[in-house]
Amino acid sequence: MTDQPLIEHLAVIGVGLIGGSAARALKKANAVGRITGVGRSQPRLAKALKLGVVDDTSSDMAAAVRDADVVLIAVPMGIYAAVFKAIAGSLPAHAIITDAGSTKQHAIREARRFLSDPNRFVPAHPIAGAEHSGVEASNAELFCNHLCLLTPDENADPEAVAKIAAMWAACGCRVEKMCADEHDDFLAAVSHLPHVVAYALVNAVNKEGNERHDPFRFAAGGFRDFTRIASSSPSMWRDIVLCNRRSILAKLDGLEAELGALRQAINDGDGERIADMFTSAKQARDAWLQRRGKGA
Amino acid sequence: MTDQPLIEHLAVIGVGLIGGSAARALKKANAVGRITGVGRSQPRLAKALKLGVVDDTSSDMAAAVRDADVVLIAVPMGIYAAVFKAIAGSLPAHAIITDAGSTKQHAIREARRFLSDPNRFVPAHPIAGAEHSGVEASNAELFCNHLCLLTPDENADPEAVAKIAAMWAACGCRVEKMCADEHDDFLAAVSHLPHVVAYALVNAVNKEGNERHDPFRFAAGGFRDFTRIASSSPSMWRDIVLCNRRSILAKLDGLEAELGALRQAINDGDGERIADMFTSAKQARDAWLQRRGKGA
Repeated sequence: MTDQPLIEHLAVIGVGLIGGSAARALKKANAVGRITGVGRSQPRLAKALKLGVVDDTSSDMAAAVRDADVVLIAVPMGIYAAVFKAIAGSLPAHAIITDAGSTKQHAIREARRFLSDPNRFVPAHPIAGAEHSGVEASNAELFCNHLCLLTPDENADPEAVAKIAAMWAACGCRVEKMCADEHDDFLAAVSHLPHVVAYALVNAVNKEGNERHDPFRFAAGGFRDFTRIASSSPSMWRDIVLCNRRSILAKLDGLEAELGALRQAINDGDGERIADMFTSAKQARDAWLQRRGKGA
Repeated sequence: MTDQPLIEHLAVIGVGLIGGSAARALKKANAVGRITGVGRSQPRLAKALKLGVVDDTSSDMAAAVRDADVVLIAVPMGIYAAVFKAIAGSLPAHAIITDAGSTKQHAIREARRFLSDPNRFVPAHPIAGAEHSGVEASNAELFCNHLCLLTPDENADPEAVAKIAAMWAACGCRVEKMCADEHDDFLAAVSHLPHVVAYALVNAVNKEGNERHDPFRFAAGGFRDFTRIASSSPSMWRDIVLCNRRSILAKLDGLEAELGALRQAINDGDGERIADMFTSAKQARDAWLQRRGKGA
């Protein structure tokens, strides 16, 4: 029995960067028997098959999950409802469902809405960068040493939770559990809000142009890095924002308060106060980097 | 006469990353006969000398500029007044002064306040990243292909302007002229405001911590890059902000307007409007990167 993989048959719905990287990592870890790639785009599925990321493919979600042991949903948040609806009727009773989305309360809500046994859904968020997208960019090391947060509620099946924890650990993640609402709140602060601000700042700069000057010409490396996340997929981020509105608005309030305090200090020419605020930010960030054990 | 360098004797006041890199680049280009490094920190000057960045050193600003042909001021904006005051009385009549500071109207104001001939001051801003600081981080290629903006006013001595343009070009810069007020306005948008926002966001996130969770633990690559500039020198950026208050406050207004529009769309759950704003930002940024001819 030692040869039996963790997961006999895995169905990955959405074979992009995240779904593809999970598939690759699980194959590399010998943690899976067979992987079916599921999606709407025939060329993308063909590419995943050709790259050896999956063993077979299907564009019929209901059929594809019919004998799956684990289903990984790796699609934009905006189509969770459609996916749960499509698979709900054909999931085997023993199947466990997980996902990789950036907002967890929404995922749980949709699972409860459609699944006959929502306690077999184990919400997950592997926090891994996604600068590039598509199965071409997928790689087995994407999740290595990244945090994967599981947010099952109190009713979740403990065996299902254990299996999904083992699955993400096999992908290379450091797996931790937390409440879905806390997850959404913290991610709003460190991920969703920065995206909103980066998009807003690029739009603000774009409006500064005049007939003589293109403001972007004067931008350098600091601006490039600050705004890198403003090159992220608009539709993916629209979905995330829509799924976590309340927390993002609350974090926006917090940022506005900080900006208001800085505005006041700048207006007053209060160098000491400005330096204090800059210093506390630098110290907090530098301490984080040090804890993280990496350079800037 | 072909062997005569562009600058016979250069005094560099402030031998840090910027002053040190300019010195190295000018030596490499054989554009300078002798470089005197000037500063208050004896160990830093000794290091610059040891590294061969300068030919001799002095901690007496007035004495050091007495037979200089060109003086490069490469110190934080907050001590411009002290530097101009210290050197004003001993500058030879033929000497030309330039700087490398991030705000130009302030530099011009201080030059006019102290110099007997402010028309020999040619304000410059080489727009080069400064992630690390100090003469140890200086290198001859720092300015290669970077924009250097000269902001002389209408009274500036044309020969002085030509010489300083040649000097920064010898450093590897693409040299352009623009008005000091326009410079300060554009740089407020693409550089000063992002710094203010990055500091503010890190402070806001820092306040999210509770007894169970450290919010920074959930941050990944996007947050790291977005906040990289929040690890910049607080005192250097306090000085810059204080020297360009009006423009920064105006840009903050522009950002707040964009954030307000996004807040409204998020509050309304208006996915189309959110996607439109995110898309216009992504398009503007991607187009900039393409013009720039570099990847993200």
